[in-house]
Amino acid sequence: MVKHGIAYLDVEPNLIRETGFHKDRSKVSESLFSLSNEYMGVRGYFEEGCSGAATLRGNYVNGLYAYALKDEPTSYRGIETRTHFMVNTVDFLGIELWADGERLDLGTSSFSSFTRCLPFREGKLTRSFVWELRNGKKVKVSFERLLSLSHYHLCLQRVSLESKEEVSISLSFKTGNPLLTWGDHAYLHEKAREVEKGLLCYETENTEQMAYIASSLFGHGGVKAERKEIQGGFADEISFVLSSKAVFDKAVAVVTSRDEMKVDPREFAVGEASYGSTHFDELAEENAASYSAFYDDLGLEIKGNALDEQGLAFCLFQLHSTYRGLSGKDNLGAKGLTGEAYSGHAFWDTETYCLPFYLLNDPDAARSLLLYREKTLPLAKEKARKLDCRGAAYPIATLDGREGCTLFQHASLQLQPSTGVVYGFYHYEKTTGDFDFVLEHGARPILNVALFLLSRGGYAQDGRGFGFYGVMGPDEFKMMVNNNYYTNVMGRFAFEYCLRIMSALPESKRKALLAEEGASESDLEDMKKAAASMYLPVSKENPDLYEQDDSFFELPHVAIDSIPREQFPLYGHWSYDRLYRTDMIKQPDVLMYCFLFLSKMSQGVLRSNFDYYEPRCIHESSLSPSIHSILAAAIGEKEKAAGYFSFATRLDLDDYNNNTGEGLHLTSLAAAYLNVLYGFAGLRTDGDLLEIDPYLPDRYESYAINFLYRGRRLRLEVGKDCTRLALVEGKPLVCRVRGKETTIDGTLSI
Amino acid sequence: MVKHGIAYLDVEPNLIRETGFHKDRSKVSESLFSLSNEYMGVRGYFEEGCSGAATLRGNYVNGLYAYALKDEPTSYRGIETRTHFMVNTVDFLGIELWADGERLDLGTSSFSSFTRCLPFREGKLTRSFVWELRNGKKVKVSFERLLSLSHYHLCLQRVSLESKEEVSISLSFKTGNPLLTWGDHAYLHEKAREVEKGLLCYETENTEQMAYIASSLFGHGGVKAERKEIQGGFADEISFVLSSKAVFDKAVAVVTSRDEMKVDPREFAVGEASYGSTHFDELAEENAASYSAFYDDLGLEIKGNALDEQGLAFCLFQLHSTYRGLSGKDNLGAKGLTGEAYSGHAFWDTETYCLPFYLLNDPDAARSLLLYREKTLPLAKEKARKLDCRGAAYPIATLDGREGCTLFQHASLQLQPSTGVVYGFYHYEKTTGDFDFVLEHGARPILNVALFLLSRGGYAQDGRGFGFYGVMGPDEFKMMVNNNYYTNVMGRFAFEYCLRIMSALPESKRKALLAEEGASESDLEDMKKAAASMYLPVSKENPDLYEQDDSFFELPHVAIDSIPREQFPLYGHWSYDRLYRTDMIKQPDVLMYCFLFLSKMSQGVLRSNFDYYEPRCIHESSLSPSIHSILAAAIGEKEKAAGYFSFATRLDLDDYNNNTGEGLHLTSLAAAYLNVLYGFAGLRTDGDLLEIDPYLPDRYESYAINFLYRGRRLRLEVGKDCTRLALVEGKPLVCRVRGKETTIDGTLSI
Repeated sequence: MVKHGIAYLDVEPNLIRETGFHKDRSKVSESLFSLSNEYMGVRGYFEEGCSGAATLRGNYVNGLYAYALKDEPTSYRGIETRTHFMVNTVDFLGIELWADGERLDLGTSSFSSFTRCLPFREGKLTRSFVWELRNGKKVKVSFERLLSLSHYHLCLQRVSLESKEEVSISLSFKTGNPLLTWGDHAYLHEKAREVEKGLLCYETENTEQMAYIASSLFGHGGVKAERKEIQGGFADEISFVLSSKAVFDKAVAVVTSRDEMKVDPREFAVGEASYGSTHFDELAEENAASYSAFYDDLGLEIKGNALDEQGLAFCLFQLHSTYRGLSGKDNLGAKGLTGEAYSGHAFWDTETYCLPFYLLNDPDAARSLLLYREKTLPLAKEKARKLDCRGAAYPIATLDGREGCTLFQHASLQLQPSTGVVYGFYHYEKTTGDFDFVLEHGARPILNVALFLLSRGGYAQDGRGFGFYGVMGPDEFKMMVNNNYYTNVMGRFAFEYCLRIMSALPESKRKALLAEEGASESDLEDMKKAAASMYLPVSKENPDLYEQDDSFFELPHVAIDSIPREQFPLYGHWSYDRLYRTDMIKQPDVLMYCFLFLSKMSQGVLRSNFDYYEPRCIHESSLSPSIHSILAAAIGEKEKAAGYFSFATRLDLDDYNNNTGEGLHLTSLAAAYLNVLYGFAGLRTDGDLLEIDPYLPDRYESYAINFLYRGRRLRLEVGKDCTRLALVEGKPLVCRVRGKETTIDGTLSI
Repeated sequence: MVKHGIAYLDVEPNLIRETGFHKDRSKVSESLFSLSNEYMGVRGYFEEGCSGAATLRGNYVNGLYAYALKDEPTSYRGIETRTHFMVNTVDFLGIELWADGERLDLGTSSFSSFTRCLPFREGKLTRSFVWELRNGKKVKVSFERLLSLSHYHLCLQRVSLESKEEVSISLSFKTGNPLLTWGDHAYLHEKAREVEKGLLCYETENTEQMAYIASSLFGHGGVKAERKEIQGGFADEISFVLSSKAVFDKAVAVVTSRDEMKVDPREFAVGEASYGSTHFDELAEENAASYSAFYDDLGLEIKGNALDEQGLAFCLFQLHSTYRGLSGKDNLGAKGLTGEAYSGHAFWDTETYCLPFYLLNDPDAARSLLLYREKTLPLAKEKARKLDCRGAAYPIATLDGREGCTLFQHASLQLQPSTGVVYGFYHYEKTTGDFDFVLEHGARPILNVALFLLSRGGYAQDGRGFGFYGVMGPDEFKMMVNNNYYTNVMGRFAFEYCLRIMSALPESKRKALLAEEGASESDLEDMKKAAASMYLPVSKENPDLYEQDDSFFELPHVAIDSIPREQFPLYGHWSYDRLYRTDMIKQPDVLMYCFLFLSKMSQGVLRSNFDYYEPRCIHESSLSPSIHSILAAAIGEKEKAAGYFSFATRLDLDDYNNNTGEGLHLTSLAAAYLNVLYGFAGLRTDGDLLEIDPYLPDRYESYAINFLYRGRRLRLEVGKDCTRLALVEGKPLVCRVRGKETTIDGTLSI
């Protein structure tokens, strides 16, 4: 697999920086320099705009969404006809700047010394340059921007101007004007405007959500701005003669009806904005302290490969910024809050790709992700009803818990979001040891998933056992297949875990739960029977080789290396039906199962399946390469592991998929982290004991990382001469190190 | 399988008649009393309307169509995003009738002695009743309507009024006002209006077709009407005192730009209308002569079952009215010209269900249907290109030759329209003996279909041979299956027939054809190889039992009798994906192949497959029961044959599918005919010899029917005591009668 990146950022371990303006990469930069504090996200666009440069001016608030304006027609039942999506909000960072009658526009103005920089330990975006006016004067302009982690309703903005000569400055800080979603429709509608207070109120198109946006401007040195009503909102305007330096801080407070505040959200927004505009430095320091603590806890060190170190630090910066379980109401969108592609929807990546990062670093956030599935259970049940099934079918793509995908081939045929929820609770239990949480919050969702699977599957007529028919497994290049190995084996796992939970519940609780969910002991018997007779297709010649589905080994072969490069991505170049009838796969399927249960896989199984499926995979999913890298590492194929890893850490930084401009591949960013821990470090967290078996890839001189496991903090240091595992916090831990049961207490050379 | 009909028409062998107005069946009656002359069709609606009665006022012109107003969104390639459909034209039969200040409206007026009648040997619709005015006076009103077969641009209408007392009559004959298609949009737009000439000109919405509609009114006894411009058109109005009888004849001439006339189509239309309005009786007689000749040629007699006799005569009336190969530009829509459901589209029913009727009765019409496929070859090639394939892929649903289906699961996965075209030419050859026609007009389409199949199929990795992957066979309750038996075996047949044609062509012609189609001798070699290695799945236990596709015998079983009746049709009650994962089938698939090659099927094969698939079929296609009846007859299951036949002849007359109101199931009507000939009469026309092996079903005292075969006209008479096969016209014929090779010359008792 050959992918090509386009690198233009400076390589430093703890920040990203663009030196000199790369106008042709403007949308990519907007994505990379995005900020998020989970409550909201802003893309790294220029406050003042830039003529001639591609842009997606996006300000998003987590959970602020709308439904499509029209139904998609269908003659069939059980198919969603109306999707929903995260909406773009309003323009609250716009600035118009004039100097000696000249308007700032980096598309047309002369400038030098451009830098744009985002240091990960600060979480503050800065952009500065020297503006060279036509009259020969020079003004140093700098913009700073941050989303406060502590006061998470606040987006702060600072503008500093410096000049050695006198320059007539005119500045207008604008707030208002709904932004278009997907470039074609504004889904926020203004409901009220209080210009004096600096407050705008909006309602979403068809979801009855309110958004209150207040802004406040503070001029250092007592400079006062004049507030004016403008079309679509208001502006704070100032004209003055700059002779040395002038600094302005603007704060925007965003509050929505989702906050369910006890106080008046309007007053709160106005108060926060006022606080924010006068406390820029304090809030920036709080952000820096918080991000620093995060990196300190991570203890990440990579020596000998600055590209990877920067890439990994960037991935972790984005993950931590985007989700910490703030409100407990949200999930992680595939693009986070950095763009509109994928509609802001969360997928099953949440449990399979992102959850491990939180389990090993921020168990509170992990719990919050699982609670989201508990909260949205009623909507998953509704979906199961629409599919003529019992229990609960979790959506393949969602924001509010409803199915957001209108394609039956994904929404109705993919069962992995549902089994993924069960796996999420299971992995939580294994990693934290907190089975009580699973009993309390997981029993009901898991029972419902198992009921769904029981009604969705069936017994083959020919006696081969229970299985799932007419499904799409993780590999989205096969549709309506039978006995997809992943789906069947995950179904068995879901039944078994459900039975384990049901037997662990006190009898009265179990009975009550069954009754409440319209289930009975005989359903549990049926699950037991289905699990015991689950059909798992394997090769006749080699039982270690799992067959992706009933027909896979027969399908006509395509030599994927023979496909001309210009035909990728295949979705865009091949007739849709053509994607589905060969042995080419889009992404790991059997291998995905191997990844999820790594501790249980023999070398024979890993080797057989990797050797068979890896040459058949075209990785038309950004989630694919890292899984291949991890499995290659597990069978000692270090070169392949390195090859697949090579762009995992820099997928977006170097725009390997040529679509970073649409937003960051947020859930894929987690893969870089998985790759280091489960690949290079040989970590296994899906079994009863923590396992670790690290190696030092050729690309590094050494690497080190901390992680949490069952209440302990552990530190792994892997060097050329010495590899150490240390217990940093917590009680001694029995684990399996390099295949041997070992107790970790203090620091151990391994 | 239990279906229930609703019978309300009088049962007579040579006509349909409604005695007394059945207002609740109004839309069904509109469909049943539809007229067509292939050029156009009018539904049997009331000229004057009827308040409170459901109606679809439909006047259709064959080939007058439009594209949808908007694209259907898709992110994928190779899928049509815009369908096309037959449009409703304009209201040209409207009449407003007043008597003594009271307006005729059978929804509110008092009336008696209502009859509506369509005698098949006349092809003229009459409706009459006695209108009982509120002032006690009575007016006998009668409407007659016909579509001329000889002057096929003409729709004629006669109104007769009789009264014994003096009544002030006011009559308005209206022409104009575009009708809505699907009740929501008018796709004809008025371009010109010449009121004096009685001419209106329209253009179709987005297909640049012109329609010219002229009308002329003739009052018997020299009564003159006044022409007035009204909104949307014009009206011919007359007020007079009726004292005994008054008769008015209106003629409407419809001409379109599709006619490609050398004369001015406007003048022609005006001339035809004028001729029509003054020659009602002559034109009615010509129609009667033509329909009578058709029925005389058919020689159909059924004794002992008037229901079947009427039903069959009705089916044949509709087939003959709808298609005789008039223009050579059209195909047969699934609903003919009787409604808008199925968009006026033709399906693969044309070759598999309708063509045999024409082959055995009207070979000119049969040729015309095949020429349609030759003409539309360029569009079928275009479709193949969109599917990344070579050759030509015929559309699953079409009016103009383009794919009209926007669902990939049908349009991209169903290969049977393409193999159906090959079968059509093959069957033509077998039935007419005219191989030259096939060489001249079939070679190119067939070569292209074979090239398409060659590029669409592939060789299994496991060595089982060539096959088609990711298809939907005739059974539309399976999607994306591999090695569908029907598709594979028809693919083999298509390759073999293509090779036969290519070897029959003179070398220079073959070479030229191959070169023109971008093919080579090595393609023919590849076809030979693919045909020879075609994989055909069969049961391991019983090689006579064919497996519908690679997974069929394993699928979970559903006892179809256990499905509650209120869940039918399943499309309307089951989640879409649920239709696809059991062994329930929608319609014959393996059995369809058995039907198409009946002469080649052993009793073992017929019995094995019928016994296996028949209990699994729910017949959610109106084309299904007759095939089951024919096969039941072939294996001597006379009771089952009778059961499946019971509603074949009266599918629409008794509204078995509860949707006749939307239009007649025109292509299904052919099934009744197939059922008599291939079922009861045991006719086989797919082999080198005609075969016949008739029996007398219990339901009849006797039956008789004529048919054409290789230039002869034969007559079969099947009675209780005596069964005879007679050569009515043509040279002696060697055929296989009751299994024995026999020469027919004169009349033979068999």
